[in-house]
Amino acid sequence: MAANPPLTGGALTQARILDAAARLMSSIGITRTTTKEIAREAGCSEATLYKHFRDKEEIFVRVLHERLPPFAEMLAELPAQAGSSTVAAHLTEVARAAVPFYRRAFPMAGAVAASADLLAAHRAKLDLAVAGPHMPSAHLAEYLRAEQALGRISAAVDPAALAMLLIGACFHRAFLTLFFDGGEELAGAEQVRAAVRVEQDEQFVLATVRALLEPVAQG
Amino acid sequence: MAANPPLTGGALTQARILDAAARLMSSIGITRTTTKEIAREAGCSEATLYKHFRDKEEIFVRVLHERLPPFAEMLAELPAQAGSSTVAAHLTEVARAAVPFYRRAFPMAGAVAASADLLAAHRAKLDLAVAGPHMPSAHLAEYLRAEQALGRISAAVDPAALAMLLIGACFHRAFLTLFFDGGEELAGAEQVRAAVRVEQDEQFVLATVRALLEPVAQG
Repeated sequence: MAANPPLTGGALTQARILDAAARLMSSIGITRTTTKEIAREAGCSEATLYKHFRDKEEIFVRVLHERLPPFAEMLAELPAQAGSSTVAAHLTEVARAAVPFYRRAFPMAGAVAASADLLAAHRAKLDLAVAGPHMPSAHLAEYLRAEQALGRISAAVDPAALAMLLIGACFHRAFLTLFFDGGEELAGAEQVRAAVRVEQDEQFVLATVRALLEPVAQG
Repeated sequence: MAANPPLTGGALTQARILDAAARLMSSIGITRTTTKEIAREAGCSEATLYKHFRDKEEIFVRVLHERLPPFAEMLAELPAQAGSSTVAAHLTEVARAAVPFYRRAFPMAGAVAASADLLAAHRAKLDLAVAGPHMPSAHLAEYLRAEQALGRISAAVDPAALAMLLIGACFHRAFLTLFFDGGEELAGAEQVRAAVRVEQDEQFVLATVRALLEPVAQG
């Protein structure tokens, strides 16, 4: 496989600016990530930054699109894997990828959801059928439907609802662990950590998949 | 029961400012909600606003604490109801309350999560053991544990994992419906709406609770 040619000129500058913005957004937060800070981190002038991007919003939306691990793409390949390995193994793999993905995406998604303008810009730029925020659960539902057709999960359950349970739990966990991150000095931190199981992603993943696949109804 | 005495003086002004801020945060978004806009909406001067609040951040954190429906409190009463009605009915009630609660909370929670400073201010002010963002699933897990002790759900499942599945699905749905809200003009909007079931909260609630309680494993 041929490697991509190295970036040069304007494309290289753009890539440096987007990388710098992504680093700042994760470290100091999106509201403190100004064009001035981004330019400093990228080692260019603000004038250069504005030659490549209209405004801070355009940079945020580009980072959201281009600097996150390709989670929806990974899930797009899942339906073709129905029948292989076990259902539990596939769901475990999904949850293992989903938690860190959403933890990285959350501060950006949060800032976007908090601003009507940013949200409109983001929506307009997204190819919804490929990268819409509903696509991970849509792909997962398609996979579960295929497993249902193969008789590997009960015909009685709703694949879309199951998919939303798993993706939703990972999404919420990402928010909780972000919220309590670095919370050592908090009153009641021990209790919180026990409840949220902050440092035990793997335990969360296994318990969640087990809860999803084991019969709950008594008898 | 005696009614609370009506607010007067400074307390009334503070309440007006918080109500105005809550309205603006939901309508124009948190980034466009400036102290100038809040003062205008509350019918007071910016000077008056600053007599009652240190800055915009303090107003946001107060709104987050005092102007949201008391969802965690509702769930705190759930464990005592184990054994009454049916498990499905209780979970349905939880999901019906959770979706609109998180839809209202999301823009504020998102803005808070996007800013390291706001997050620290919010965490410091929260009584984590009462109103921490992990409390809804902690209360729900306690309820499920009580139902387990009564033999109304299988002893084999993990109540904490089940609780996180249900709360997480509602939290994620709130984000998705916010994201696609007013998205009539979007390309592929029909397809998106079908996948997200935007206008069908009740269908989401029933399908999710059913998926949670029905055996998934084949055979």
